Amino acid sequence: MLYIIGLGLYDENDISIKGLRAIEDCDEVYAEFYTAMLQGSSLSAIERRIGRNVKVLGRGEIEEERIPIERALELDVALLVAGDPLVATTHTELLIDAHRRGIETRVIHSSSIISAAPGLAGLQAYKFGRIITIPFTSDNYFPTSPYTNIGENLKAGSHSLVLLDIEAHRNRYMTASEGLRYLLKASEKLDDDTISGENLAVVIARAGSEKPLVRADRIAALVDEDFGDPLHCLVVPAGLHFIEADYLVEIAGAPRAVVERMIL
Amino acid sequence: MLYIIGLGLYDENDISIKGLRAIEDCDEVYAEFYTAMLQGSSLSAIERRIGRNVKVLGRGEIEEERIPIERALELDVALLVAGDPLVATTHTELLIDAHRRGIETRVIHSSSIISAAPGLAGLQAYKFGRIITIPFTSDNYFPTSPYTNIGENLKAGSHSLVLLDIEAHRNRYMTASEGLRYLLKASEKLDDDTISGENLAVVIARAGSEKPLVRADRIAALVDEDFGDPLHCLVVPAGLHFIEADYLVEIAGAPRAVVERMIL
Repeated sequence: MLYIIGLGLYDENDISIKGLRAIEDCDEVYAEFYTAMLQGSSLSAIERRIGRNVKVLGRGEIEEERIPIERALELDVALLVAGDPLVATTHTELLIDAHRRGIETRVIHSSSIISAAPGLAGLQAYKFGRIITIPFTSDNYFPTSPYTNIGENLKAGSHSLVLLDIEAHRNRYMTASEGLRYLLKASEKLDDDTISGENLAVVIARAGSEKPLVRADRIAALVDEDFGDPLHCLVVPAGLHFIEADYLVEIAGAPRAVVERMIL
Repeated sequence: MLYIIGLGLYDENDISIKGLRAIEDCDEVYAEFYTAMLQGSSLSAIERRIGRNVKVLGRGEIEEERIPIERALELDVALLVAGDPLVATTHTELLIDAHRRGIETRVIHSSSIISAAPGLAGLQAYKFGRIITIPFTSDNYFPTSPYTNIGENLKAGSHSLVLLDIEAHRNRYMTASEGLRYLLKASEKLDDDTISGENLAVVIARAGSEKPLVRADRIAALVDEDFGDPLHCLVVPAGLHFIEADYLVEIAGAPRAVVERMIL
């Protein structure tokens, strides 16, 4: 049996009771932290919480050597992953491979930025369009599709959840300010004003922690702020229902004048 | 202090350790099950799991009498909700109200169909467009916007997560077959073939349970199948990456010929 178990959003206490119990029944416990890592935790804190030793596997050990699959041919094996499993293609491929080799599998879900961020931003989940990721850019690499895709969502009246690039192996996490600077630079490069300094954005930092930051304002006002430790993500809202607007003012500190002109 | 705590997807074991601990610290524990209920659980199973008595509140007691807010003026109060909190507007309004009245709040996230369904369907979360809900229809009430919105997603190359109506107070849950029949009827009514019996759909039933059902096929082949107990939801996929296609064949039993013509 191969269990793929979500650790949830932020720290070692975001795992479900169901996940903990499944781990108790397993012969071996692995984890992968190259697709994402719990920012409010550490390997030793996770090991203390679950009461088991955890072997952390690198990309090659999972995707080429297929260690969890090979072991699960004989044993009950758990693979722990940050967030809700299956969001990364790696885990989908493991399920396909396990199924082909006759290994029973079970996925244990957990909290994810995909459902948490709309809620924390006070925006209705069914009004979100496609999720966008802003990658790290360089002098030679500056894709404009993330900007264009947010623009498409805006034109369709859909909010955008904007995830920011992670290079977990280098402990490098894009900040909300870097993400916002990307948007302003793309706007300039494309000579397009769909998204400008005047647009409303919501910064969410440390979702799942005791005090997540939720801050809404014009991009021009947010771009130089320091939002503290990772992970950060952004939401770019389209037209607002008045309850969404109230929330952004009351909870996220948005200037009333900025959100009021966005009410549908 | 007002805690809004997610119970997660399916049963009383989907709550996080963090949620359990917050409940221990609370003076009073409430729950609302009118926006959604755990299908694999019961009030008494939840009470046993958390070791506390729970008072279930109706819509009027939360939205008009504001019982959780009134009590949280003096005490530490937990409000338990199915899934990840804040997906329903009710909870957003509670946060706004609490904030205006100087009550500290904390949201504890949990698993949600919004992140679980894309994963269970083997489809990439960032390729989903807007979430659509199909409402119960009648002779006098047959909105076509859910059909049209799925069509918009398809044209944009985006997968659709399709939630099915719930009337929790009447213990009435739309089945996947009813949802699919709605799509065929809307297609006929609008004389539009964006979605027909030939389209691929994925049925997900009992997400979060030990054996969730994931079944992909042409709508015409699925519409008369019995998918068992609620909750059900649908996914209508747009163009597929070959790993998405492999998953649908291998795990969800889709006919290879049907998915192959959808590979981009």
